[in-house]
Amino acid sequence: MLHDPNRVYVFDTTLRDGEQVPGCQLTTPEKVEIARELELLGVDIIEAGFPVSSPGDFQSVVEISKAVTNPTVCALTRANKGDIDAAVEALKYAKHPRIHTGIGSSDQHILHKFNSTREEILERGVEAVRYAKKFVEDIEFYAEDAGRADVVFLAQMVEAVIAAGATVVNIPDTNGYCLPDQYGAKIKFLKENVKNIDKAIISVHCHNDLGLATANAVAGLQNGARQIEGTINGIGERAGNTSIEEVVMILKTHQVLGLHTNINAKNFYELSRMVSSQMRMPIQANKAIVGANAFAHSSGIHQDGFLKNRDNYEILRPEDVGFPSASIVLTARSGRHALKFHLERLGFTLSKDELADVYKNFLNLADGKLDINDTDLQGLMAYRLVKN
Amino acid sequence: MLHDPNRVYVFDTTLRDGEQVPGCQLTTPEKVEIARELELLGVDIIEAGFPVSSPGDFQSVVEISKAVTNPTVCALTRANKGDIDAAVEALKYAKHPRIHTGIGSSDQHILHKFNSTREEILERGVEAVRYAKKFVEDIEFYAEDAGRADVVFLAQMVEAVIAAGATVVNIPDTNGYCLPDQYGAKIKFLKENVKNIDKAIISVHCHNDLGLATANAVAGLQNGARQIEGTINGIGERAGNTSIEEVVMILKTHQVLGLHTNINAKNFYELSRMVSSQMRMPIQANKAIVGANAFAHSSGIHQDGFLKNRDNYEILRPEDVGFPSASIVLTARSGRHALKFHLERLGFTLSKDELADVYKNFLNLADGKLDINDTDLQGLMAYRLVKN
Repeated sequence: MLHDPNRVYVFDTTLRDGEQVPGCQLTTPEKVEIARELELLGVDIIEAGFPVSSPGDFQSVVEISKAVTNPTVCALTRANKGDIDAAVEALKYAKHPRIHTGIGSSDQHILHKFNSTREEILERGVEAVRYAKKFVEDIEFYAEDAGRADVVFLAQMVEAVIAAGATVVNIPDTNGYCLPDQYGAKIKFLKENVKNIDKAIISVHCHNDLGLATANAVAGLQNGARQIEGTINGIGERAGNTSIEEVVMILKTHQVLGLHTNINAKNFYELSRMVSSQMRMPIQANKAIVGANAFAHSSGIHQDGFLKNRDNYEILRPEDVGFPSASIVLTARSGRHALKFHLERLGFTLSKDELADVYKNFLNLADGKLDINDTDLQGLMAYRLVKN
Repeated sequence: MLHDPNRVYVFDTTLRDGEQVPGCQLTTPEKVEIARELELLGVDIIEAGFPVSSPGDFQSVVEISKAVTNPTVCALTRANKGDIDAAVEALKYAKHPRIHTGIGSSDQHILHKFNSTREEILERGVEAVRYAKKFVEDIEFYAEDAGRADVVFLAQMVEAVIAAGATVVNIPDTNGYCLPDQYGAKIKFLKENVKNIDKAIISVHCHNDLGLATANAVAGLQNGARQIEGTINGIGERAGNTSIEEVVMILKTHQVLGLHTNINAKNFYELSRMVSSQMRMPIQANKAIVGANAFAHSSGIHQDGFLKNRDNYEILRPEDVGFPSASIVLTARSGRHALKFHLERLGFTLSKDELADVYKNFLNLADGKLDINDTDLQGLMAYRLVKN
């Protein structure tokens, strides 16, 4: 099925799982604008919405289908004909349509959400795939709450839906429950025990309730999954989804895994800002890859080491993800070496003794301020000229 | 050495690694206030500062030492006498003082930061421990950039510093480089190959450059580490450190690991807000455990499932970490079941057909709004009364 066994497909759900978050709702034109940027980023699949859920969502899937060319456009459904009919209709202009249907796979969901049995739920899943397959070739099946599902039953379900025509099988850790070794073992079990597994791509869809969404997604890829679902900035239901930017940069940093995507990582920074601004979801400064401080070295030990050799404290280059520039910020925790670097940048060359002297004044100033900018440094040097 | 082999010690570095971030600087009284809250949270060790780095930092270590009783108070140093002397002096009022000294362990740091050799650096590390041990019994050694260090050399270094008196050996992934399985394997190697390893506690200190700090810390604990270093809200240099709240809740959720801490998790929410506010570091809404949306269910599928049985979409209780309340938020992505729940809460009981009718009006309204509050719902119902 896959021509290149090391290619990882990137499935973006910013406009579906991300957009359903309180406060993040977008208009259709806003969604189309983000979808166009996702196409430029190089994502393989855009999940454009859940058409049956509201007229606005339906319309967004229609307009995104018209607007993009290369990515597959995907619509979410539950395992019933009404949902699938709405998705088929919404996808009619898509060049590469995909229907994403599914049902709960954990006993928790089977018993307490569907009030049903494993056999009945498996059959409903299979029927939904068969029905969707009449209209659309590319069918992804989600086994909801797979993170907590019995793995033997999960394997039966996966085998049955692949036999019914599913081209992608999504193994979501819906509640962000698993540890990476547990989630990896689940994917490995499916890879090794589902007879027809080579007829489909295994997809990972992880939630971040325990802060493990990225690690779980990577553990899935290490064990045979080849599609990763996530969002820009990791937004999504509750604590959010896997951050696409994190997984992509992990694969680039750890070439030993031998996996690659089609993503243009230099587009991350701008798209991250655009999503944050349009969805009114600020990114915390210490967010990996795209946070304001992600590449900012502030302590004296780190600044000194960074200035000696970038690789001492930098495993990725900010420019690789489109960051405007790396920054060395001066604070009361900065060392002489960083102070010297900035003073030289401003045109002041000092002897070792002079530097030691200015550094004392700098520390007194910095202890009372958040950070020290160029004007502060010029003030320090002016004060010194007056004093001497 | 450890009485309880399953007890994990929590080492908080919010006031050192967190505080060195641009914009996060605190006054000494602010640091003392946070230290008192960390004591109430139940952390075992508070890293109070880097005394030699500035007079303000020195004074903070002094004042925190006076202010807290139960936690060990720790001061950071490089591997030299001047730094250690300053730390000893700053810690003189601590009831349980600890010195945290160390040096680079990766060839990258040895060659390009210290311009030195493995032998020389190992000797400098050993000398620092020996010197510090003259003044303070509890000595933690950090092998900086251990995440990228050759594991055989790292094992030699760890063995030598334990022989010199180190009580805790910190194996930092300084640059947030490792994958969880790699980091876990490193800890396992030390546990199995360092002859005197049972004379010290292995500590994990992970950075979040690739979004893996929490997963790496947990992998360390699964492989024999028994101290975890981190910060509140995961703040820290660049993309930050391991979030203490995430690791603690992972251990609580996964009892199968058999590990426990002394943390009062119900204090997390308030302390998280306090740190965020004092350090001027907003927490993103989708931050695990403490973000505003961490327990908010918004999509129709999730709200419906949540209302049927909380466990369908909730693996932790918001009240367990002190959250004021869980929330079901109404948006254009909400289903009939959630709408019914909120209308009944407001005193409106509807038949199935009435609900279907109100739901249509609700969707039209919600498609144009961010979210729907009680006033909106009352307006919807009033409109209906007028219309009929």
